[in-house]
Amino acid sequence: MALRQDMPALANKIYFNYGGQGPLPTASLHAMAASWRRIQELGPFAKPVFSYVEELIASLRLALAALCGVPSQRLAFTENVTSGCVLPLWGLPWRPGDELLIGDGEHPGVVATCHELARREQLQVKTLPVQQYCGAEQVLERLDQALQPRTRLVVLSHLLWTTGAAMPLPAVGRRLREHVNQPWLVVDGAQSTGAVPLQEAVAAADLYAFTGHKWLCGPEGLGAVALSRRLLEVGTPTMIGWRGLAKDPADPLRLHGDARRYEIATSCSPLAAGLLQSLHRLATVGDPCQRLERIRVRSGALWHGLRQLDGVETLLPEAPPAGMVSFRVRGFGSQQVVSALAARGLVLRSFEEPDCVRACCHVTTLPTESERLIHEIASLGTNSGTPEA
Amino acid sequence: MALRQDMPALANKIYFNYGGQGPLPTASLHAMAASWRRIQELGPFAKPVFSYVEELIASLRLALAALCGVPSQRLAFTENVTSGCVLPLWGLPWRPGDELLIGDGEHPGVVATCHELARREQLQVKTLPVQQYCGAEQVLERLDQALQPRTRLVVLSHLLWTTGAAMPLPAVGRRLREHVNQPWLVVDGAQSTGAVPLQEAVAAADLYAFTGHKWLCGPEGLGAVALSRRLLEVGTPTMIGWRGLAKDPADPLRLHGDARRYEIATSCSPLAAGLLQSLHRLATVGDPCQRLERIRVRSGALWHGLRQLDGVETLLPEAPPAGMVSFRVRGFGSQQVVSALAARGLVLRSFEEPDCVRACCHVTTLPTESERLIHEIASLGTNSGTPEA
Repeated sequence: MALRQDMPALANKIYFNYGGQGPLPTASLHAMAASWRRIQELGPFAKPVFSYVEELIASLRLALAALCGVPSQRLAFTENVTSGCVLPLWGLPWRPGDELLIGDGEHPGVVATCHELARREQLQVKTLPVQQYCGAEQVLERLDQALQPRTRLVVLSHLLWTTGAAMPLPAVGRRLREHVNQPWLVVDGAQSTGAVPLQEAVAAADLYAFTGHKWLCGPEGLGAVALSRRLLEVGTPTMIGWRGLAKDPADPLRLHGDARRYEIATSCSPLAAGLLQSLHRLATVGDPCQRLERIRVRSGALWHGLRQLDGVETLLPEAPPAGMVSFRVRGFGSQQVVSALAARGLVLRSFEEPDCVRACCHVTTLPTESERLIHEIASLGTNSGTPEA
Repeated sequence: MALRQDMPALANKIYFNYGGQGPLPTASLHAMAASWRRIQELGPFAKPVFSYVEELIASLRLALAALCGVPSQRLAFTENVTSGCVLPLWGLPWRPGDELLIGDGEHPGVVATCHELARREQLQVKTLPVQQYCGAEQVLERLDQALQPRTRLVVLSHLLWTTGAAMPLPAVGRRLREHVNQPWLVVDGAQSTGAVPLQEAVAAADLYAFTGHKWLCGPEGLGAVALSRRLLEVGTPTMIGWRGLAKDPADPLRLHGDARRYEIATSCSPLAAGLLQSLHRLATVGDPCQRLERIRVRSGALWHGLRQLDGVETLLPEAPPAGMVSFRVRGFGSQQVVSALAARGLVLRSFEEPDCVRACCHVTTLPTESERLIHEIASLGTNSGTPEA
């Protein structure tokens, strides 16, 4: 597979941490270096650079907007997923007593910022229990139970980063639109973008934040957020810089009318050339639906194989909706499993809450890699010293 | 000069836009590419990468903290200067009616965010007139006149980006400490960092924000902010992500005790390798004092040469304190001057308010480059068509 051959990260290890960071194709690194050289050739600070960078950024904005199924005017670039998730929240019209309803499987950064927002704006934070596996129907039932007249915002991931479960976002979106307050739906797309088609989920969300450096296999430090029309209408940006300003000589502080108002100031534009190249390389494997099919073949085989092992418990009771396969090994701490596997060249990660090991399968995962992982887990008890007490 | 030879941007043009963006040494580009390759070799998401990146970031933090003369615990990385200037402001304990006093030569991004902060927190924004040239004594007089019992924050640049004038920050800091409110002093160090020694100015400031991609000749997208002890004590971060969290299993939302609490989430760590390399390369030309001496020889020669031309007016009545030389050419619009020079391979920028052209001289500027600029300005009237009506 040409894509895999172009990823040096996959040459010297058996890699299952795509959800932490995706391997960077050498073509993407070359595209970034070429972009830096071009900027030096033209500038670095000169009119021809501004046109070059504008075109580069516009191309990437179009490509990512297409992935999300939104007009490019609704997409703002960010440095990472956390920034995309939380920055627009600070400029929403809060009323004291409003409630924020946050899934119990959300990333600590998003949770921490919501608590700080709540402290300053006198809001209430409530938790929606969805991390312990429950099907789509039960997620919706729990949502119905948790929604209050004062609920103003719901935060959920498209795919939970710990268990890999999918949240039924289109149905959640419908529920919220029927609610008296029409709460905003904020979605963390860190684990979904590049792994599953996004359009239905983005259409359901008011804010869908993602990054290029995980399942899209782009460079670290560049992500984006898709914003709904109504959020763009009522929200105001909190961090304002030259990229958010319309450059109107008559009114130097006037903001762009579209989502660019949420972009701040200078960022690393060569990263855009890298991410564009990664998108091109992923497209050689198929469109998002075809890639998901391929991912699910890999993750499904791993999930089935692990379940057949004595003493291994998968966190999902059914084959994963995308690439994440989380599991526990009886008698072993999850960190212990990760360390034992790392010593054998297999790269995974563990979580403390819920206690589990996570293996991510991407389009580049080989059947032999999953088989090797199953084999190593099976031999853990016999080869890696004593299990934990 | 070895440094200049290693900057491809300087090979095909006569460059005077260091204040917009500094040329990137090829060694810095190579350092970034090598860092990306190392991350792929070790991970990209795996324990050995975390140690590698931690060491890299720690080295850069130490180097930049030394430049600022502060302990590294008081330095937080940011994506750009604007973010560094404004992000910490949102978490300060404002009282309705507090006044923000902003220099009239500040960058629109910082000004716009201060206005938005004022709108939300019911603060007043006042302007301190310092852009029209006035010496240090007069800046302090005007500050004394502008300070009110409710003044809570003062925003000034170390060097004004338009005129290149230096603000007397140590004296300003002393004034503010004597004031009943002890207003916070926020300093935009975009044009000073890499051009002049910073330590006294940083010591006077509560917040000193800068970027690596201008006078430090590093890659775009990486800057930092030095925060005072008292600001760290009373402020709370507004954007919280995994990099700001202490990773305490007993309290997952506990923040780092030091300035890292203001860092957010994933950024592009290879940029740190690039900036470190740029710092090393600059150090080959001398320490910050020696480099400033060299810069002032260049900018002084340009300033003197321009003043001897008929119809050229410099914005500063004395030789520039650092590398920026701003001027006007009688009968020509500033944008027209920039375009005419660009057509001859000289790269400068113009401003609308105050109407002027800015030429930046760095340690890499050659005497022949300044002479060529003076010559081209002198011949503007004769060679470049009709002056403006």
